[in-house]
Amino acid sequence: MTADSARPVFQTYDVTTHPSQGARHTAALRREMTKLGLDGFIVPHEDEHQNEYLPDANERLAWVSGFTGSAGAALILRDRAVLYADGRYTLQSREQTDPAVFEVKDFHGTSLADEIAALPAGSVVGYDPRLVTPDALTRLSAAAASAKVQLVPVSPNPLDVAWGKARPAQPMAAIVPQPLAQAGLASADKRGNIAGSLRSNGIAAALITAPSSLAWLFNIRGGDVIRSPLPLGQTILKNDGTAELFVEPAKVSDGLLEWLGNEVSVKTPDEIAASLSALRGQSVLIDANTSSAFWLEAIRAAGATPVTADDPCLLPRACKNATEIAGTKAAHIRDGAILSTFLHWVATEAQETLPTEIEVAQKLESLRIDGLGTGADLKDLSFDTISGFGPHGALPHYRVNTNSNIPIRKGNLLLVDSGGQYVDGTTDVTRTMAIGTPTAEHRRMFTLVLKGHIALATVRFPAGTTGTHLDVLARQFLWAEGFDYDHGTGHGVGVYLGVHEGPQRISKALNRYALQTGMIVSNEPGFYKENDFGIRIENLQFVTEAVIPEGGERAMHGFETLTWAPIDRTLIDVSLLTPAERAYMDGYHSKVLELVAPLVSAEVRAWLKEVCAPL
Amino acid sequence: MTADSARPVFQTYDVTTHPSQGARHTAALRREMTKLGLDGFIVPHEDEHQNEYLPDANERLAWVSGFTGSAGAALILRDRAVLYADGRYTLQSREQTDPAVFEVKDFHGTSLADEIAALPAGSVVGYDPRLVTPDALTRLSAAAASAKVQLVPVSPNPLDVAWGKARPAQPMAAIVPQPLAQAGLASADKRGNIAGSLRSNGIAAALITAPSSLAWLFNIRGGDVIRSPLPLGQTILKNDGTAELFVEPAKVSDGLLEWLGNEVSVKTPDEIAASLSALRGQSVLIDANTSSAFWLEAIRAAGATPVTADDPCLLPRACKNATEIAGTKAAHIRDGAILSTFLHWVATEAQETLPTEIEVAQKLESLRIDGLGTGADLKDLSFDTISGFGPHGALPHYRVNTNSNIPIRKGNLLLVDSGGQYVDGTTDVTRTMAIGTPTAEHRRMFTLVLKGHIALATVRFPAGTTGTHLDVLARQFLWAEGFDYDHGTGHGVGVYLGVHEGPQRISKALNRYALQTGMIVSNEPGFYKENDFGIRIENLQFVTEAVIPEGGERAMHGFETLTWAPIDRTLIDVSLLTPAERAYMDGYHSKVLELVAPLVSAEVRAWLKEVCAPL
Repeated sequence: MTADSARPVFQTYDVTTHPSQGARHTAALRREMTKLGLDGFIVPHEDEHQNEYLPDANERLAWVSGFTGSAGAALILRDRAVLYADGRYTLQSREQTDPAVFEVKDFHGTSLADEIAALPAGSVVGYDPRLVTPDALTRLSAAAASAKVQLVPVSPNPLDVAWGKARPAQPMAAIVPQPLAQAGLASADKRGNIAGSLRSNGIAAALITAPSSLAWLFNIRGGDVIRSPLPLGQTILKNDGTAELFVEPAKVSDGLLEWLGNEVSVKTPDEIAASLSALRGQSVLIDANTSSAFWLEAIRAAGATPVTADDPCLLPRACKNATEIAGTKAAHIRDGAILSTFLHWVATEAQETLPTEIEVAQKLESLRIDGLGTGADLKDLSFDTISGFGPHGALPHYRVNTNSNIPIRKGNLLLVDSGGQYVDGTTDVTRTMAIGTPTAEHRRMFTLVLKGHIALATVRFPAGTTGTHLDVLARQFLWAEGFDYDHGTGHGVGVYLGVHEGPQRISKALNRYALQTGMIVSNEPGFYKENDFGIRIENLQFVTEAVIPEGGERAMHGFETLTWAPIDRTLIDVSLLTPAERAYMDGYHSKVLELVAPLVSAEVRAWLKEVCAPL
Repeated sequence: MTADSARPVFQTYDVTTHPSQGARHTAALRREMTKLGLDGFIVPHEDEHQNEYLPDANERLAWVSGFTGSAGAALILRDRAVLYADGRYTLQSREQTDPAVFEVKDFHGTSLADEIAALPAGSVVGYDPRLVTPDALTRLSAAAASAKVQLVPVSPNPLDVAWGKARPAQPMAAIVPQPLAQAGLASADKRGNIAGSLRSNGIAAALITAPSSLAWLFNIRGGDVIRSPLPLGQTILKNDGTAELFVEPAKVSDGLLEWLGNEVSVKTPDEIAASLSALRGQSVLIDANTSSAFWLEAIRAAGATPVTADDPCLLPRACKNATEIAGTKAAHIRDGAILSTFLHWVATEAQETLPTEIEVAQKLESLRIDGLGTGADLKDLSFDTISGFGPHGALPHYRVNTNSNIPIRKGNLLLVDSGGQYVDGTTDVTRTMAIGTPTAEHRRMFTLVLKGHIALATVRFPAGTTGTHLDVLARQFLWAEGFDYDHGTGHGVGVYLGVHEGPQRISKALNRYALQTGMIVSNEPGFYKENDFGIRIENLQFVTEAVIPEGGERAMHGFETLTWAPIDRTLIDVSLLTPAERAYMDGYHSKVLELVAPLVSAEVRAWLKEVCAPL
């Protein structure tokens, strides 16, 4: 397939907010708060679907503060406002907000609760129950009770009222089938499996509100949210395997109705209350960690008994079936060819033309859109490309814009973290490249990161092992020399779904979910030297079936790598590698050559042969 | 000091229970249950002090069932009885009980709750609230509620009534001061520190019931429990630093009263209720995980408000001060000389005389009692020595008795796990020794275990790291080849206190307590081939202060080894070690020689030089 000039360009680099909006928008919000008698109002980043990426209409935190990061929360009080931002967004949150309006604090899970616990007794703080999970509300309520603060649900959301006509419309993208050739298991089978489990637990139905669960359960995809093909809506799945799917009618075509079949009735969102009422007196499952407190209350209001438990789609979605694994492997090989072509460009032409960070990201996007004739049909990026040169590479979540954009130059490192959404798979890969000749420090730190990456790629582990147990493998070589990185080592990844997907995770945080066959995780240790340079090496890998190693006694899982693109050999200090690590790298590069070389141009192929030669 | 013939021998090898007692004792208990209208009665292993090791008078589970393991619980019903035993006791629990009386099941935390949840609705199940923690009671109550089973506290304990006059008396060992030269911090300072924390949390007092907390807080030791110098009792620590200590008057001498000082009033256990009443209307801290439900209820009954939180002694006790570390180092060097002398005996004389497992344990005990002139004043063993040859070595918690005792023979491995209680430190060390010539399999498996031991001994890690994160380091080499071991890698250890001490732990279980400077943990990976042989290599090590490694950026903790005794070089396959691992072993052995050789006989010294030479 050749490049299609009519195709949209996905990523934009404009600055979409300004610190000055904080003063105007908090003032407008405070006028609404006064009408409601509120001393404070909670503005989380999460929206009514508890998504990571939000439709423009739900970017409430950005609207009120200017802060556009993907995690955070604000507490707007009568005379002051506090913004809590995740540690990875410390710099960005300070740059994007007006210090005269917002005090910025580091967010550590309970911090908003601490803020509420420090309010004067008798304060009245409002929240929108659609934007808060029951679990989060429990923590906030405990803090409020300890301080004799009154926490009250309010509807409609006073921020939405203050935003008024300027607020964008809710997205209405068409919902489309995800073919069985990609999904691997019919929706009827998925629904039947979960229904059986509901029956054996004496539960009448599950109210499922996570858009990614809807996508997985019904084998559908949507376009309501950028970067993730999520259909926004809710479903009630009954324990007989039938379901009601609540979505805006504008998103539903006749073809979709046919795809969903007779066992799924499509209804409008305002019909949920009536459907819940039909469950009066029965048990209804709801996930208190991913659904809104609003829905828990709706079940109670309907006279049904809420049973809080994991979203029943959580684990089956995370454990990819053979078809999904085959698809994601194919998507990764095509994406690897594209990425290798990009890396060749960085290693050759870009070393002379020294493009800007934006031009680097645009080059990669144009290659992904073009598809190199591999048949890759890019649906979207899986997230906005992180294209960070030198000191910008030291910001793990740097997102270049027209204000921050700088050209690359010789003597430092370029870090590019990117991915594509393809109908058969979601990719996410980071490569760090030397521009010019790397220093000894660059090579030492890159190699320490690489050793951790290899340890996590090659580990074997028994059933029951979680990502909490394995995280140290990726950090041990950095720790030994007095370094670390302040982000998780790996996140779950969907198949043509969210690039961040739970419940599995490889990080220091205590995680109780065992790594199971078919789960996809990233393997992305890094090192960041503030104001200087950043390094990250990221491949995706999936958990293989547990088998007994030859000569062993017990079955062990392992990982199989999905991502195939060369790792910059000029950054590897071979003297720091063990023979086994060196053999791993040579094996990896030989497989890159085998899988990717047939898909790239002759020029890129010749280059690949060089950079994939044994170390 | 030479051997004292009047000194007691600590460990006995008699079989103290018989499966036949189950029928008699359950019948006697059921008679008492009938009088109380109970359909069932819960018999946990834990006693009223939630100890691991119990006074004979509190060995209720052993009395009713015959099972003597250190973890388990029984549910005695009218017509059947179920014994839950920890997986490590599966074999032992079946051997020690009568299958016609007890159904034995594996214990996994909630299993007793599951048993209760499966009882007929309307059943009445009794429990002794002194033997159950509030946390455990919460789980049992939820199960009972789901099954409409009535869970009722009963007093006196019907088992104690059934046991009657045959029940041994409660121990009345004298409480003695633990000198400041060993404790390192005066009780007044310890009380002052905790009192400050109580004040800043608005708490009037803490009711502390863990005997190890009493020992630590007041710088005292007792003799009520074998293997641990614990004083049984309770204390109320006020937020002004004063305390009431509730212990039997028979345990208290005038010298002790002087040692405790004016700020500590010593009272009898039956005065607690009155003391709690004096706290009416105030907040009283209690640890719901280590205290009995009885005490939580006593606080409520007194009109005070219980605040559940960690026992305030938990972390300060775990983080040893410099004096405690110095003492434990000294104790370990003396114990290392004793152990080295024992290992020399195994490597020479025992290879000819082929003693029994009991004789092996007795030899080691006699050396520890003798003290080798090192000044070691053995107060007790820190636990019953595990002396397991061949297939017995494959039982991680094997405790030899006169029925199981076998002689060692050439061609297999001897595993000895032992430790001593000295006034300045508690030791715990495991060595596995080849009897005759080891096989290639013995050497391969020993070396895989050793590599894990070395990885955990040499790791550096940042603040916030827990034992859950580090556990994989010790297992990774076994996992890679399809092996694992079914026990934790490391437990906390006290200083002349319990050989098992929390909250730190190195294991797969999710543990939220960071490893902090001064915490002592064991490092004891193993491998067990059923019915064939067992391997375990155990040293104690403590967490060192975090410092920035040269050339690094961030402070890292590490471990410093405490245990010094040679590791059997005939079991090490040097070809499987990396250069760094080999250097570690050579450094370890050179340090053994430096520290221990001056304390042993000329003959042992000459042997040590050989076995501690570079690999």
